[in-house]
Parts: sequence; C-alpha cells; structure tokens
Amino acid sequence: MEKIPSAVINPLKSLNLLSRAEIEGLTGSRGELYKLFRSCALAILNTDSAKDDAAEIYADYSDFDIRVVPQPRGLRLELANAPAQAFVDGRMIRGIQEHLFSALRDIVYTDFKILATQESPPLPADTTNMVFRILRNARIVQPDIHPKLVVCWGGHSIPREEYDYAKEVGYELGLRGLDIVTGCGIGAMKGPMKGAAVGHAKQQIKDGRYIGISEPGIIASESPNAIVNELVIMPDIEKRLEAFVRLAHTIIVFPGGVGTVEEVLYLLSILMHEDNRGAVPLVFAGPETCRGYFEQLDGFLVDCLGEGVRDYYQLIIGDAAGVGRAVKESIAEVHNRRRESGQAYYYNWDLVIDPSLQVPFVPTHQNMAGLNLSSGLPPAELSSQLRRAFSGLVAGNVKAFGIEQVRRHGPYRLHGEPGLLRSMDSLLRMMVREQRMKLGECESDYRPCYQLA
Amino acid sequence: MEKIPSAVINPLKSLNLLSRAEIEGLTGSRGELYKLFRSCALAILNTDSAKDDAAEIYADYSDFDIRVVPQPRGLRLELANAPAQAFVDGRMIRGIQEHLFSALRDIVYTDFKILATQESPPLPADTTNMVFRILRNARIVQPDIHPKLVVCWGGHSIPREEYDYAKEVGYELGLRGLDIVTGCGIGAMKGPMKGAAVGHAKQQIKDGRYIGISEPGIIASESPNAIVNELVIMPDIEKRLEAFVRLAHTIIVFPGGVGTVEEVLYLLSILMHEDNRGAVPLVFAGPETCRGYFEQLDGFLVDCLGEGVRDYYQLIIGDAAGVGRAVKESIAEVHNRRRESGQAYYYNWDLVIDPSLQVPFVPTHQNMAGLNLSSGLPPAELSSQLRRAFSGLVAGNVKAFGIEQVRRHGPYRLHGEPGLLRSMDSLLRMMVREQRMKLGECESDYRPCYQLA
Amino acid sequence: MEKIPSAVINPLKSLNLLSRAEIEGLTGSRGELYKLFRSCALAILNTDSAKDDAAEIYADYSDFDIRVVPQPRGLRLELANAPAQAFVDGRMIRGIQEHLFSALRDIVYTDFKILATQESPPLPADTTNMVFRILRNARIVQPDIHPKLVVCWGGHSIPREEYDYAKEVGYELGLRGLDIVTGCGIGAMKGPMKGAAVGHAKQQIKDGRYIGISEPGIIASESPNAIVNELVIMPDIEKRLEAFVRLAHTIIVFPGGVGTVEEVLYLLSILMHEDNRGAVPLVFAGPETCRGYFEQLDGFLVDCLGEGVRDYYQLIIGDAAGVGRAVKESIAEVHNRRRESGQAYYYNWDLVIDPSLQVPFVPTHQNMAGLNLSSGLPPAELSSQLRRAFSGLVAGNVKAFGIEQVRRHGPYRLHGEPGLLRSMDSLLRMMVREQRMKLGECESDYRPCYQLA
Amino acid sequence: MEKIPSAVINPLKSLNLLSRAEIEGLTGSRGELYKLFRSCALAILNTDSAKDDAAEIYADYSDFDIRVVPQPRGLRLELANAPAQAFVDGRMIRGIQEHLFSALRDIVYTDFKILATQESPPLPADTTNMVFRILRNARIVQPDIHPKLVVCWGGHSIPREEYDYAKEVGYELGLRGLDIVTGCGIGAMKGPMKGAAVGHAKQQIKDGRYIGISEPGIIASESPNAIVNELVIMPDIEKRLEAFVRLAHTIIVFPGGVGTVEEVLYLLSILMHEDNRGAVPLVFAGPETCRGYFEQLDGFLVDCLGEGVRDYYQLIIGDAAGVGRAVKESIAEVHNRRRESGQAYYYNWDLVIDPSLQVPFVPTHQNMAGLNLSSGLPPAELSSQLRRAFSGLVAGNVKAFGIEQVRRHGPYRLHGEPGLLRSMDSLLRMMVREQRMKLGECESDYRPCYQLA
Repeated sequence: MEKIPSAVINPLKSLNLLSRAEIEGLTGSRGELYKLFRSCALAILNTDSAKDDAAEIYADYSDFDIRVVPQPRGLRLELANAPAQAFVDGRMIRGIQEHLFSALRDIVYTDFKILATQESPPLPADTTNMVFRILRNARIVQPDIHPKLVVCWGGHSIPREEYDYAKEVGYELGLRGLDIVTGCGIGAMKGPMKGAAVGHAKQQIKDGRYIGISEPGIIASESPNAIVNELVIMPDIEKRLEAFVRLAHTIIVFPGGVGTVEEVLYLLSILMHEDNRGAVPLVFAGPETCRGYFEQLDGFLVDCLGEGVRDYYQLIIGDAAGVGRAVKESIAEVHNRRRESGQAYYYNWDLVIDPSLQVPFVPTHQNMAGLNLSSGLPPAELSSQLRRAFSGLVAGNVKAFGIEQVRRHGPYRLHGEPGLLRSMDSLLRMMVREQRMKLGECESDYRPCYQLA
Repeated sequence: MEKIPSAVINPLKSLNLLSRAEIEGLTGSRGELYKLFRSCALAILNTDSAKDDAAEIYADYSDFDIRVVPQPRGLRLELANAPAQAFVDGRMIRGIQEHLFSALRDIVYTDFKILATQESPPLPADTTNMVFRILRNARIVQPDIHPKLVVCWGGHSIPREEYDYAKEVGYELGLRGLDIVTGCGIGAMKGPMKGAAVGHAKQQIKDGRYIGISEPGIIASESPNAIVNELVIMPDIEKRLEAFVRLAHTIIVFPGGVGTVEEVLYLLSILMHEDNRGAVPLVFAGPETCRGYFEQLDGFLVDCLGEGVRDYYQLIIGDAAGVGRAVKESIAEVHNRRRESGQAYYYNWDLVIDPSLQVPFVPTHQNMAGLNLSSGLPPAELSSQLRRAFSGLVAGNVKAFGIEQVRRHGPYRLHGEPGLLRSMDSLLRMMVREQRMKLGECESDYRPCYQLA
Repeated sequence: MEKIPSAVINPLKSLNLLSRAEIEGLTGSRGELYKLFRSCALAILNTDSAKDDAAEIYADYSDFDIRVVPQPRGLRLELANAPAQAFVDGRMIRGIQEHLFSALRDIVYTDFKILATQESPPLPADTTNMVFRILRNARIVQPDIHPKLVVCWGGHSIPREEYDYAKEVGYELGLRGLDIVTGCGIGAMKGPMKGAAVGHAKQQIKDGRYIGISEPGIIASESPNAIVNELVIMPDIEKRLEAFVRLAHTIIVFPGGVGTVEEVLYLLSILMHEDNRGAVPLVFAGPETCRGYFEQLDGFLVDCLGEGVRDYYQLIIGDAAGVGRAVKESIAEVHNRRRESGQAYYYNWDLVIDPSLQVPFVPTHQNMAGLNLSSGLPPAELSSQLRRAFSGLVAGNVKAFGIEQVRRHGPYRLHGEPGLLRSMDSLLRMMVREQRMKLGECESDYRPCYQLA
Repeated sequence: MEKIPSAVINPLKSLNLLSRAEIEGLTGSRGELYKLFRSCALAILNTDSAKDDAAEIYADYSDFDIRVVPQPRGLRLELANAPAQAFVDGRMIRGIQEHLFSALRDIVYTDFKILATQESPPLPADTTNMVFRILRNARIVQPDIHPKLVVCWGGHSIPREEYDYAKEVGYELGLRGLDIVTGCGIGAMKGPMKGAAVGHAKQQIKDGRYIGISEPGIIASESPNAIVNELVIMPDIEKRLEAFVRLAHTIIVFPGGVGTVEEVLYLLSILMHEDNRGAVPLVFAGPETCRGYFEQLDGFLVDCLGEGVRDYYQLIIGDAAGVGRAVKESIAEVHNRRRESGQAYYYNWDLVIDPSLQVPFVPTHQNMAGLNLSSGLPPAELSSQLRRAFSGLVAGNVKAFGIEQVRRHGPYRLHGEPGLLRSMDSLLRMMVREQRMKLGECESDYRPCYQLA
C-alpha cells in the first residue's frame, strides 16, 4: 500500500461554502460525523482498488487522516497517509478530488439540513422527500437539464468478457446520447460509463453524465471509479435504492452477485404494485457466456414470484446495439407517458414504494432469522422479504457491520419454505461457483456468510 | 393602471426544482406563505413605479392573482391582472421574471428550511447563520467568485442631479470592476447600478453583479429595478441590514431620507464596537448641491454620538472618479486584512453585531414610545436606539404595517433628551423640506408620522 | 491633452495569431500599413473625445507611437504618449483595448489577404465579396448567430434632447432583443447603443451586439465609443456603406449633418432600383423638436427625387416605443421574406448595388465640380450623384484629406440645376443653423467648405 | 457495404459561412475541387473501416454523392449512398459530421485563399507560412490556448497488445493534461486518443484536444477515427509532416510500417541540422513484444546515419507511466526554452526545414529510381533522400496514385549503396513478416511494391 504522506486539496466545483456551524459539526466534538466523512473519504481515495473488503481497507489505512480547514475563499482539506492511487505525479486526480467534496457536501447536508430537523419515524412521503432533497442538493436533479438516465446494475466482480460487454452496451447508450447511473464501483458499474464516455466523445457530447449513487455502508467495497462525474452519497441502502428507481428512465441489469439480486428484488417488488405498472422498463442483458446465468436467475424469480414476473423484464443476450436501441425506445415511452400525465421527468414522484422497502433493514442475526420467506405471501410482499435477505447477504460479504456480525455470531440463518430456499440455494451456489460473491476469491476460498435452514 | 389580464411564466435560472411538500406549502391551505409570495410578486411586477405607498399599490391591484403550477420539467407561474409595466409587447421582461422566481425561492427556503426548523428565540450566532444560509441559497455568496461588493445606500426620492451623480459614481465603480449592492429600489439604489452597467460594458465585463437585498415589508415601496440581476428577499429589516454589512467590502452613503439614516445608525452602532474597528469602510458622497445635507447629517451624528463618530466615515463632495479610486483602495485594504487574518472574503463572520440590532423591532406606538433616546447611553447603544426610532419612521412613512398604525393611533410619539430631539427634529425638517420623505409629495403635502415629545 | 507616457497592451479575444509575414508587414519597411494602423489606433484611443477634426487630433498627438511586438503566446502592443482618456487608473479600458486589436486585425487582413491578391479594377461582385470577407473575418457575420441588426444612422453633433431620444429608442430596441449597428462614434451613433445596453440588461441578454463600422478616413472624427463591442474597419467609405446595407434588417435615421444625408442618398439610390423593392425598411425618427428637420429633409428629397421617394421611408416623431414596435415588425418581415426566398439572413447577397456607388469617390475639386446634379437623370442615378456631393462635403468638413484640399484650393464648387441647388442650399443652411456640421462650432463660426454655383 | 440512400447534414461549429464565390468554386464547373472534397468526404464517412486500400474504397462507393447547398443561415450537405457506419439509428455521428465540414473548410481555404494567390514556386518561408495559415484557419493554433501537444506516430495495422499499449500511454498522457496529435487513422493513431480521453475524463478535463492531421492522398487509407475532435487536411504529405513537427512539443513513435519510418526519417533529417538541436524531443515507445522491432529500426538508422543518430531519440520499452512522466518533463523543457528565447509556444517558427523536405515528392518510377541512397551524403541529407524513398513505398502500398503507378509499371526500383539497401531490405522484410504493411494481409499475401536494385 503506497501512501502519500501529506496533501492539501482545494475544492473544485461541487462544494458550496460551508457555514461556521457546518464546519464545526465536521471538525468539533461530534465525532460521528467526522468518522463518517473519514471513512467515505478513504473509500473514495481507494479508487480502482482490487479490494472490496471494507474492514480490510480500513485496517490498511488506519493511519489515514483528513481535516477540514476554513480558508478566506472557502475551505480546504488536509490529508495524511492517503492511498497513492488517487494521485498522479503527486497531484490528486481531479475526479477523485471532486468526489471528496461531494462526500463532504452530502454528509453535511444530510446531517444538518435533514436529519437535524427530522421527526422520527418519518412517513413514507417524508422519506421520498428526503431522497429528493439530497439529490437536488447534489444537483443530480436540475431544472435546466432534460434527463435521460439509464440505471445500470450488475456485479463488481465479473469476468473480462462481461466487462467488455458492459462497455459495449455503454458505448451504444453513449452514441444515443443517454446518460449512465450506477452504484459507482468497478465491474458492471464502471464498464457502461467507460463505454458511454467514448460514445459521447464521438457524438461530441461534452456534458455526458456519469452518476454514481453510493451509501456509507457500501462505498468502501465499491469505491467510486473516476469516470463518475457526479457522485452522491445517500444515508443508507434503502434510500440509495429509492434514488435509483425514482431517477431511472430505464434500468439495465448485467450479471452480478447478491447485491444485484437485492436490487432486482427491490425493483420487482415495486413494479408488481398495480399503480406502478410499466413505470420503470427493465432489461436483463449480458454476453452469450451469461445465458446460463440469466436462465438461473429467471428460474429463481419464477419459482418465488410466479410466471407473471416475466412481464416485468425483457432479456437480451449479446447484441449491444440492440440493447441501445431498445433502451432508447423505452426511454422515449417513459418520457411520453410522463408528459401526458403531467409528471416530472426528473424524479418519479408518483411511484408507489411500500414502507417495507423504505425502512432501513439492519442485518442482525435476529432480523435475518425473522424474515418470512414464504410463497404464501403476495408476490410484491415476498419480493420485499427476499430483498431484505439478500441485503443481509451483501452485508455479510463486504460491509463492515455485516462482516463483524458474522465474525461474532457465525453465518446468518435464513428460514422459509423449503422449495423457495432450495431455489435460492441453487442461485447462490451458482454465484459462488462463478466467483461473483467477492473479488479475488475462487470457489474453494469462499466461506458463505449464510445457512439456509 | 394598465394590467395584463393573464400571463404564464416559466422559470429561468434562479429557481431550483421544488419538492412536492414545498409546492403544497405555497399552494395549499397554509395561506400565510401564499399571501407573502403574492405581495412580494406584486411589488416586483410594479417595477419602476412612481409610487412608494405600499397600501395604495396593494389596493390598486386587489384583483391581482398568482398561482404556482407544477410541470413535467419544473413549475410555472400563472398570473392574472399583473401590472403592465413588467411586460414588453405582452412578454414579461426577463429581469422581472427572474425576480419573481427569486422571491419564490427565498420565501420557500426561509419558511421550509429555516423557520420550520428553528427554535425560538434564536441565539445571535443562529441569526448570523440564518442570514448566511439565505444568502448562500440565493447564490449571493458563491465559492468560485472573488467578491468585491460596494454597498450603496441612499434615498429613493431624490432630485435629478443626485441621481445623475449616483450614476456617475456607479460608472466609476464599474470601470474599476467593482460590483454593486443596494436595497434594489429606484433613486440612489438604481443610479449606481445603471452607471456600473455602462462601466462594466466598457470593460467588457459580462458578469457584473447588481445585487438587490429587500425584505417583504419594504419591497412594495422600493420595488426592484430591472437592472438588479441577483435579488434576495430577507425575512425582515434587521436581517436585511445584517446581510448588507456582512457582505460589504465598502459602503457608500448617498443622501436619502429616514431609511438612509436608519442604515447609517445601524452601521455606526456596529463600527463603534471595539472589535469591529475598521471592519467596514464608510464613505458619504454626493454632488456639490448636497454639501448642506451632509453638514446637517454630520452635525446630527456629532450631537448624538460625539465628535469621535467622525473617525468612522469620510465625506467626498463631487469628484465621482475620486470616490471610485477611494473605494477601490479601501476594498483592497479590506481584502488584505481578511487574507492576513484568514477570514472569509465573502461574508464577514467576525463582525460583532449586538443582539439589540438583530432582534426585529416592531414599530407599535408602545415600542416607539419606549425607546431610550438619551445621550447618557454609550454611543454604540444610543445609535442602536436611534436606529429603531428611524426604523419606525420608515414604517410610518411607507410600510403597510406602520401606515396602518399611524392611521389608527395618530403620529408616533418619541421621548428623549430635549437637545437630542431638537437635533433630530432639525434633521427631519430638512428632509421634509428637501422632499426626501416620500415620492411625489412637496413640503406642504407631507403629514409627519411622528411627534417629538 | 493628458497623455500616458508608456503602456504595454496584451491582446484579448479579437485578435488571431499573426504569421511572421503579417507582423513584418506591419513593422517592417512598408511604412504605409504601419501609418494606417497608427492613425486608426490614435483615433480609437481618443474615445469620447469632444473633437472631430482629424487634422487637429493628429497634430495634438504627433508624438504618439505604437509598436507590434511578437510574444511566445501571441503578440503585444507597446504604446507611447497615448491619450489618457482610454485609461482608468493607468490601465487601458478593455473595450478600447479590444478595438485596438480589431483595427490591427482588419488592417492586416485587408492588406494581406485581400488587397494583396486583388486584380484591379475589381468587378462589382468582387467588391461585394470583399466586403463579406472582411465582415466574416471580423466575425460580424457568424454561422451560429441569428442576426437581427438595426442600423442606426444620424449625426455626431446633436443636442441633448436628440441624444436622449436616441437612447430611448435604443432602450426600446434592446428590450425587444434587437442589436445595434452604427458608425461607432458619439451622438446618434452612441445613444442607441447605450440605450440598448440597458434594455438588454433588463432582459438579461448578455451577448447584446453593439457593432461599429468605421473606415480609416472617418475614424478620427468619429472615434469609436467604448460601448461598441464589435468594431470593424472597412477600407473606404463606399465599402463601409455597403457593409451597412447588406447587414441591415432595418435602418433608422436620426437627424444628422451632411454625413447622414450621404447615407440616406446612398440607400435611396439602391432602394429605387426595381430589384431591391422593400429590401431594407427605412425609418426616419426623432423627438418632437426635430419635426422641422425632417420636413426639410423630406422636402429636399421630394424636390430632387420626386414624390415617389416617400414610398421608401416612414417617419415617426416621438413615441420611442412605437419605433421599437415598428422596427421589430419590419425585421420579422425581412426574415420571412429571406426565409421564403432561401436568402441568407446574415448578408443580403441579392441586393443590387450600382458600380457608381461602389467605386471610391475621391473628393478632389475636379471630381466635385464634375458631378452631374441634374433632375433629368433617373432618380436612382441622381441620388448616386448627390451621394457623392455630400460625401465630398463630409470630407471637407472633418476628414484630413478633404480639409487639406479645401485649405489649398478654397471651397468645393458644385454645379447643377439651379432649383436643385437651391433646395440643397436650403438644407445645408438649416444644418449650419442647427449646428449639425461640426462639433463645438456655432453658426457664425462655421466656414462652409462648398459653394453652390 | 451497407449504405444510407440519402441524408441531409447541417453544419456544426467548425465551418464558417462561405461566400458565394467559395460555394460556386465547390459546386460549379471547376470539377477538381469538388472531386477532392468528394473523395475526402467518402474517406471520412468510412470511419473505423477495416480497409486501407484507397482504390478499393473508392470503387465500393462509386455511387456516393455529396452536394453543398446554401441555406438562409449557412449551408448544408446532401449525401447519397454514404457508408452506414458513420450513422447511428439513421443520424450521422456528430464527430463525423464535424469532420465533413472541417474537410470542406480546409479545401475551400487552401484553394481560394492560398493556392489562388500563390506564385510558384513558393519560397521555403512561404511554405512555412502556408502551413501556419491553414492551421490557424482550422483553429489548431489559437491565441487563447496554452498548447501542450504530443504528436504520436505509429502504424495503423498493429496487433492488439500494441494497440492496448498505445491506449495505456495515451491514458498516462491524458492524466497529465496533455493533448494528442496523430495522423488521425486507426491503430497507433487512435489508441493514444482513446486512452487520453479516459485520462482527461478522470481529470475532468472537458476540452481535451484530439487533433488529426491528414492529407487528401492518405485520408482514404487512414480514415479519421471519431475521437478526433479537431481535423485538419493539409494539401500534401510534406505540409502534413511540417505541420506535425512545428506543432509538436514532443513526439512519440510507436511501432509502425513504412509510413512511420518515413516520419522518423523526416524528423531526423531536421533534428540533425545544427540549428535545430533539441528542438523536438523524440521518444520511441512500445510494449515488451516490440523490443525486437525497435532494435531493428535502431540498427537501420545507425547503419544509414551513423552512431550519432542515437543522440536524437530515447527508447522506452513498457512502463507507460514512465513514458507519461518523460513526455511531461520534456514538454516542460520545450516550454522553458521557448519562453526564454521569446519563441511562440504554438508554432515552431524557428525550426529550420530544408527545401528538399518541403517540395512535394511525386512517386513516379523515374523519381524513385533517381533517389540518391548513398552513405557518402551528409546524414541530414541522406535521411531526406531515404524519407522520399519510404514516402514512395507508402504510396505504392495504400495511396491511389502509387497503386496505379505500380499496377502499370511494376514495382518501384530503388538504387543505392548495397550495404544501405541491405539494411533497408532487412527492415522491410521484418515489417512484412510482422504484417505492418497493409491491413488484413498476412506475409504470404503481401506483394511488395518495390525492388531494391
């Protein structure tokens, strides 16, 4: 781990001026906020890293420090022992520099303006409002931009041909002037952005948008790639997911691991609500080598949620240009529908999201064991329960909190209907086999963080 | 009164997207916020008006209506019976259009983000923070701009040669690349901006700043001129004054009426605090015809606050270029001092402002009668008391609330030391004589809203 | 005459890089080009001057010098004994600085790229082409701008109320988003620009165009005002006039002296050609005080060119907003007609201009005496002859060449039909009486440069 | 060959308005200019093609047509049977669209403004001037840009690992804020641009420059890649080479074929002139797999030009970041030297280029046979002779003229000193073996266009 002993960083464009109270909040005795910023900052500086184990990263850089220092014309950051890969010839890469100040902005904004004034527990509409306000403050929603956002989900740990395919799809999206939103890490989160950057360059589009949406719990394992030119950090995974679906004009799912399945289940739970019919077009896409992957995923979804679930997505294998054309058309339809019904293009206020999808799920062993994975539930509800289960698996794999839980108490135990658990087990085994669970681990290395009871 | 029966207005750049809760706050049952916006909007549309009597303006346009209507890509305003002078060939002047959305922004922001979350009564630091946050939200303070702001105070009801002089000074400031901040009305508030616009044009400065700072109580009598390209509406007169002095790098006072004297007393009360020495350079300036005016103002200040008060201002008669040079130099000194002490250029956080200057003063007859106008007080404190007295006189002259009080209860009665009251009386008589109290009223018409006991 | 002993000026945006050959052309032994640049530069620096006698200005600044010095990143100008009014606190006003480099650009371009490659005498189409190429090189015609150019003609020596009226008309044009083209001097050439600048500011138009078109012979007597933000110097008066009419979407004539009459006659000679019908709308405009002026001008035109001439112009007295509306409408018509016929908006290629209007007229006594001022000529032809006569009178009044001719040989002698000469005499006397001939000269001072035989 | 039957294209930013004479020149009876434009246009539309045989491409699209049509606000292009790869969903890729108008601009400019006015034969200084003027007109040299241009030379027909390496070097250059200039085709001409685009994106550089310099003879075999955002077409290969070296702040040579050797010999001939010492830093770079290639190239250069030739270049194998650092340093040195000596950064006026390198070399059999390839010549002169020989080989391989010559008269015959020819033969054989001569041809397919006598 090469480190830069000390560096001073001035803000670029993403940070507004902070008030005295805001600076004191970050630097003063309230250690929580500072710790949060420090760990996000470290994750950001760890760009393009081949590690996705948050705990390990934090240990490697235990001597890392970052300070917020007010200046006559704004403020600056002073860093100690920062990861060297964020620098070129001793100067921080500007994309990374922007990300640091985006993190500062979001953490200050969320704490001071939102959490500080919030009564608990928030109503669903309040959560939706909070997500909107954070996105607005980060200028992800803007009055003068015509949004055409393709959200791309998929794994960070993927083989070369899938990465190349994701790039190719991104290229076709970029050629069509579309912008990309991802979870901002590597793999299927980086490929579409990199491809779109080339597509945009050929179309001489200089304001292409590569939006990364992260949250403090995942940012260390999915540290933002530097193509991202708009980074926003939501307070937790549920608000991150809500941001994705309310912003999206179409969503593409590339092959991924448990995190990707969590996202798919979250979205399906919403789409199966009758008021949301057709609200978010969903495309599963991958190269020829992924045909088996999608067959298994499709099988799992049908097993759990019934044949009807297939109405909510289409599958395209290969044919990156075909994906580009299909997405362009579905976005045009979304725009038409919104215009006709007088809805906003930039934020899907009308999407109904069940409170069970909004309330943060804390993956303790007790909460995981308490999930109701029964096919007797209505599909939308079961999908929400399954979403929580996979959310817990993500935590157990790569998030500091989950890793610690599993270290102390052993694997999570999930209960439910045997047939459903079998289908889930089979999906998970395939993912282990294909090394989609964690970076750099082969099948025999992987120690599951779960037991299906 | 020519009116435009109906008009639809789309936002330009100044307005961010509103959340659903914000739109409902403006349009729903909470009538207060809507009424406030309607009256500010009417004042803004009444641009360049020859009237300064708020009550009269509101009566003339009692059938005026304005509605906020959400749209797919933002929102729009629908107007009924708007003043025709805001339009050219049936289309609203863009500067005015911007102002409408600035008002919307500030009213929503102040109510939702600040007042909604505020405990009462606020601490002094909280008020300072609130002023900062409103200015930041209005993008008056920005991270990427080197501010060089000349605040210009002075009357709205002034003779032609004073207006021409104010324009000439503005021209010299504009030639030197300086930006202008005023109360945003006509007269000495418009002249410097118009002059600076020509100076900026000759210097090919395209981003010259003409900042208008208003408040709901005064905006109707000082409706924003259309040169203003950044308008911000503070919640009350005290926060408006605090905004002026924390933003200013130098302040010029042109001749004016009671409002101008209020501003001078407010500033002197601050400058006489020992920690604020030299913090805000102050220049009195006017054409040769104003020599007598400034002699009398100077005499009044010395009578009340002692000879020492002269240390806080310099007087320049004529010589507009000389004013330009002096201001440029004093701004350079202010910048130097701030840089050396590590203070922000954009907002004078370190200025000590006494709570008596921050707490809103409501000009009831009881409050006016209770003021302590005694030369026994320390000068800074007496200046603050006198500030309140003049604030009340402004209200009695032109603000709806004050006019109504005086209509019901007769003139305000001010008590205090006879010598001090005599000096004050003499100043006020001169202002009546010179027709500086109210637009379009000659000496014999003017019915004073006060009695000096 | 205050002078700045020495100053170094770097180029802003208007100048492209010069090649070595171009720099050598300006600095080397070919003195002609350097002399031309020096005299234009002096005229430009003499901004806002109250003098219009070129010979006197050149004498006042006989020690003025300017040198072109190549630099690593471009080139710079070194000045000695430049007029002080072009500077503020020792730094040149940026508008003036731009003009210097515009002059350099046009002189280099015209000499190197056009005159150097031209066979003599040029065909009419070649002249039109040359005018276009100079305008294109100066970026007056641009591919990405929708032009809406109002050419304003009128006197430089005009009374205050006419100046205010011209400003007011400019304000109404600016409010309607129209751009201004003038001869770039003071008086009626500056007023419309200053007014339009305020109108543009109210409409938040930041890219308002204030185009000044000059030529080396007149620039000293009409030194460019600093509102001009695009200056172009044509090689001679005939090309300057052609530039005006091919760029114009409408032309307004304010009261003026012999130069203004030259312009009117030039335009009428073109408009009376049957192929040009309606090509350039023409409005005579002035305040109430100018009613008599326009009556006399109208009478002169009818006397010389017949009643039919009135079809080519409309007269508006007062009512600046009415002028604004009329011009806006006539521009819309011009645009419509051009679109329908597939003509360019930016340059009126199709306008037929007779060679007699293109060939430079040199006002020697012989040439002046040889003019044929006879009502037997077709009106278009007579108008062209009269144009030459008035062109000579302008030279005799203010241009260095003409003044020298008259100094040597006495007043020009004009021959022609008595009735026609009487009408002309009467017009000229009125202009002398109203002090429209030369700045700062009352009627009794003025020594006519002509005799009507 | 998929074709788009008809398409209408409007200009973007690169084209200024054309005068009538210019449009007539392109569309009228002077067929030469039109033919030139048509063939350049076809080459441009053939973007990313896998073919490099000009004759074949022209045959494939013999029904292609392109017309210049004037419009009210500019002009447009009407295309028939254009290659489909320039389009996405029926709309032309904007980068390609720009290139079409760049070609139009350069062909019009060169013919009308330069060749039309040129006396023959031009002096060396005139050629240098012409190259400058074409670059200035194309805005490659601009007054307000600080140039830092890395010229990258290398083959269009290269294996994957060399392409990836070129991309990696480009990435390191982009991360360091440097801009790329190449011959604008594929292979080593595209890789550095693509890599730099990603590096620039990470550094949030939105105005990265990817300059392609072509000429009519080569453009069909090296059709511009769409990353190129500034395309300029020089009149012939000699002016193209002069443009490269006068613009370059450093030159990198990747492995290539005969064209690359031509470029190296051209540059060495210049660098060996005593007045040019150190004027253009030269780096040979390639991945580990290219070690043998560079050994052989180095051997050939030493055989022909002596040991001393090694003073003029350095070799870096692998270590893309090291290339980035070395180039950044050498550019800093070049800038320093130019600043100290007062030379322009944007164009190396002082570089001495021998007339033998400027005069167009026409590869007839007679001219090829007449070359003097003798080690008795001074190295700079021999290098120039060798440059011509390789220029002829390029023509025989891929240019329409050369292919036709060889078709008619058989292979070129080169005469010279046996040792020298042997060394040359050995170099050429290696290039054939490594398939660097022509796209898609393996060793056994390749029919040499030369015989070494």
